[in-house]
Amino acid sequence: MAVRVDLRTTASLLGTVLKGLAWPLSVLTVVALGYGESPVPFAVPLVPSVVVGKGLERLERGDTGPREAFLLVALSWLSVALVGAIPFVLADTGVLATPVNALFESMSGITTTGATVIQSFEAHSRSILLWRSVLQWLGGLGILVLAVGLLSRLSVSGAQLMETETQTRNVTKLTPSIAGTARLLGGLYVGLTALLVLVLLGLRVVGLAPNMGPYNAVAHALTTVSTAGFSPEAASIGAFSPAVQWVVILFMIVGATNFVLLYYLARGDPSRLRESEEFRFYLTILAGATALIVAALAFEEGFSGLDTLRHAVFQAVSIFTTTGYATVDFDTWPTLARHILLVGMFVGGMAGSTTCSIKTLRWLVVAKAFRRDLFTAIHPEAIRPIRLSGRPIDESTIRDVYTYTLVSVVIFGFLTVFVIVDAARVGLALGEFEAMGAAASTFLNIGPAFGLAGPYGSYEAFPVSTKLVMIVLMWIGRIEIVPVLVLFTTAFWRS
Amino acid sequence: MAVRVDLRTTASLLGTVLKGLAWPLSVLTVVALGYGESPVPFAVPLVPSVVVGKGLERLERGDTGPREAFLLVALSWLSVALVGAIPFVLADTGVLATPVNALFESMSGITTTGATVIQSFEAHSRSILLWRSVLQWLGGLGILVLAVGLLSRLSVSGAQLMETETQTRNVTKLTPSIAGTARLLGGLYVGLTALLVLVLLGLRVVGLAPNMGPYNAVAHALTTVSTAGFSPEAASIGAFSPAVQWVVILFMIVGATNFVLLYYLARGDPSRLRESEEFRFYLTILAGATALIVAALAFEEGFSGLDTLRHAVFQAVSIFTTTGYATVDFDTWPTLARHILLVGMFVGGMAGSTTCSIKTLRWLVVAKAFRRDLFTAIHPEAIRPIRLSGRPIDESTIRDVYTYTLVSVVIFGFLTVFVIVDAARVGLALGEFEAMGAAASTFLNIGPAFGLAGPYGSYEAFPVSTKLVMIVLMWIGRIEIVPVLVLFTTAFWRS
Ligand SMILES: [K+]
Ligand SMILES: [K+]
Repeated sequence: MAVRVDLRTTASLLGTVLKGLAWPLSVLTVVALGYGESPVPFAVPLVPSVVVGKGLERLERGDTGPREAFLLVALSWLSVALVGAIPFVLADTGVLATPVNALFESMSGITTTGATVIQSFEAHSRSILLWRSVLQWLGGLGILVLAVGLLSRLSVSGAQLMETETQTRNVTKLTPSIAGTARLLGGLYVGLTALLVLVLLGLRVVGLAPNMGPYNAVAHALTTVSTAGFSPEAASIGAFSPAVQWVVILFMIVGATNFVLLYYLARGDPSRLRESEEFRFYLTILAGATALIVAALAFEEGFSGLDTLRHAVFQAVSIFTTTGYATVDFDTWPTLARHILLVGMFVGGMAGSTTCSIKTLRWLVVAKAFRRDLFTAIHPEAIRPIRLSGRPIDESTIRDVYTYTLVSVVIFGFLTVFVIVDAARVGLALGEFEAMGAAASTFLNIGPAFGLAGPYGSYEAFPVSTKLVMIVLMWIGRIEIVPVLVLFTTAFWRS
Repeated sequence: MAVRVDLRTTASLLGTVLKGLAWPLSVLTVVALGYGESPVPFAVPLVPSVVVGKGLERLERGDTGPREAFLLVALSWLSVALVGAIPFVLADTGVLATPVNALFESMSGITTTGATVIQSFEAHSRSILLWRSVLQWLGGLGILVLAVGLLSRLSVSGAQLMETETQTRNVTKLTPSIAGTARLLGGLYVGLTALLVLVLLGLRVVGLAPNMGPYNAVAHALTTVSTAGFSPEAASIGAFSPAVQWVVILFMIVGATNFVLLYYLARGDPSRLRESEEFRFYLTILAGATALIVAALAFEEGFSGLDTLRHAVFQAVSIFTTTGYATVDFDTWPTLARHILLVGMFVGGMAGSTTCSIKTLRWLVVAKAFRRDLFTAIHPEAIRPIRLSGRPIDESTIRDVYTYTLVSVVIFGFLTVFVIVDAARVGLALGEFEAMGAAASTFLNIGPAFGLAGPYGSYEAFPVSTKLVMIVLMWIGRIEIVPVLVLFTTAFWRS
């Protein structure tokens, strides 16, 4: 019995994904024309995306098993990143013109990372800067479909936990197909994005956001709900009023919340959100980190009231939710505050949200499993299932969670060593903290880090080899590692 | 049914440990007299160790359960460290005179860490410098008893694996008590130490080690077989000839090998060592790391033949076996070489040896479990036990291994942040790499690190608060974390 990956089915599904890219590319073509900018960067890739997409789609489809699903996920993110890079190359402006930089920016977009190579935002047209935001919004949508529709059904990385935790099954009962569930949550995602656009424009109308035009409202709504973090403004959210900043804080928190729980909330049932242990854990960690940052800032720089508080809350929320926006150059913050942000990169938001990184669900399981281990060390005979929001978790799931967390930390460690050794090779002076920050921020899909890669910095100065490795690791990190790594096992390709 | 920890039994066993300290203290009293140095630092603590030891020992002993065992282990290392610090305070010379420094050095000794606060070795008498080596040798003996006799019987940290791997049970069948097994392996430990003394003196006799006197032969044999790393020489093993360095390399490797396997080897059965998957894994990692270091050194500094090779092998073996000796100031090495050493700190030697850190057994299990996870991602229905040297491992053991590895890495991360923030607080300029090195090197019981704490440096300059935290973490790290952390759970003290 030679079970093999069904390449035809995978290619056909990939064709649908590629064909789908025609929509955003068409929108951007129109937008470019509207702004009097060249539509060529968007019109040209329209052709291959439709032609290749339709061509692949026509292949005969069989059943989709785990292999086909993994390969589809890995290839989808990779090929969208490749197509997404074409407009940057064709626009041929600024640092984005070189293929490696274009691919870096595109992969950083579709993976909702938000690490940028751009050095001068004025060098790029409005449509090109909007394309970055659109890529991130598509990446956020993709990850919701992936998390809720796919990973939760495959037994990997502990993502199946989300199901236990939030009863995706009940949602699925309402719409008994993956496509149906994805549509429900996708609709919520679209709705939240539209709501944020309206709120931001509303702030302008009432005089609380003088410089918030429709362009910026859309561009930032696209990258807030997706906890992604690209901004067409060099100063990021620091370019806008405190009112805008508080609204963005709220929507980053929403974007980092499990969308199934948000769905119930939207249907008028807040009890599931209230009863979620992960949600409370997530809010507790966020509040604790913010308090520590406020204390560190107040101690070093003097407490300046609401401003200190706002910057501390904003930066903590931005990093912990893996968004990556900035309102100040947190790279100049005191040692303790900067380290809280670095540690926060490993936390992430809730599972089933648009956030990246290890996620609070996994840390909660790790913490509970460790407490249980201490208990069974004293009571070796005791059998104690671990419960999340009252429901017991499978032991194999706990192992999956451990694997994922440990593998993430190990990959981060090796990436840090690579970044610093590669920088030393070309004579780039790079501190160890900067290297750790850049490694965590790319692999865990946060975006900005410290030093060179600081919130108002750019990844352009890194060696090409480092950028290539980061491109690969943004990709691997965003789709939860396993779908890429299984491709390198012989079991995947043979029976 | 109110099961509680039996404090009386624990105290009685602790009394035996304390009373046992009278032996090394008596030997050092005699040695000090022989060198014409003051015997007071060793004679004075003899009194409390005998009086308190005998007093506690008289308490009625009941059964020893997991609670009593954990408490005994935690208190043994702590109280020996406290008694061990007394000679340093009483000698009242150099930096060791202050209580915190004395306790740091003593804890670093008994935990076989080898991190030193000493700045000038000439400031201390021969007997005081020998006391450091004796503490480490006792610590190594203690850890063998702990690993083989105790941890392998309690279901924690994956230490029970050692049993599966090496059939401690068969040894135990030969001598059907914990005490018997401990005596067998303790005898091997004593024999190896004596052998190294003879080999080192033999090198002198044949003219290959001109400056290797009996004092240095004993002092270094005590800290080589225990993979501990204190040296009375400021230049560490760099003070001796290449022949001595090669011999020390060999004995560090031996000290980092599972003592049960060594026991079979000594009985003329090399097959178990040859068939051990962990042993092969350990040698492969060591060879790979050495090759990388040789390449890095040759590339940066030019390959100078045997010297480069010897320093690379020595430093790799010294760090990977968690010994911590130096033949050169590896802190001046190129970036890649220094980072291999930092990464190597997390590897450690084999389980059941005198080494510290995470150990190759756990990494091997983690690697196998991850490969299995990738396989089951594609074959969700597959049930595949993980095997070590052909024998299947319990799933709960795999979880224990994961817990231990992940908790170690997380504690290391928080310790690094503490070290750097605490240094910033007192205005001590400390690089991030130095902080990581010092955190890993103390918590994982290696000894030297980089910068301030480099192989020819000293931990003296760290703030007192940092030194106190390091004292606690050397303690926690050496006894495999769990025995200390369980003491902080309510389940430990209540039913
Ligand atoms: K991001
Ligand atoms: K050591």
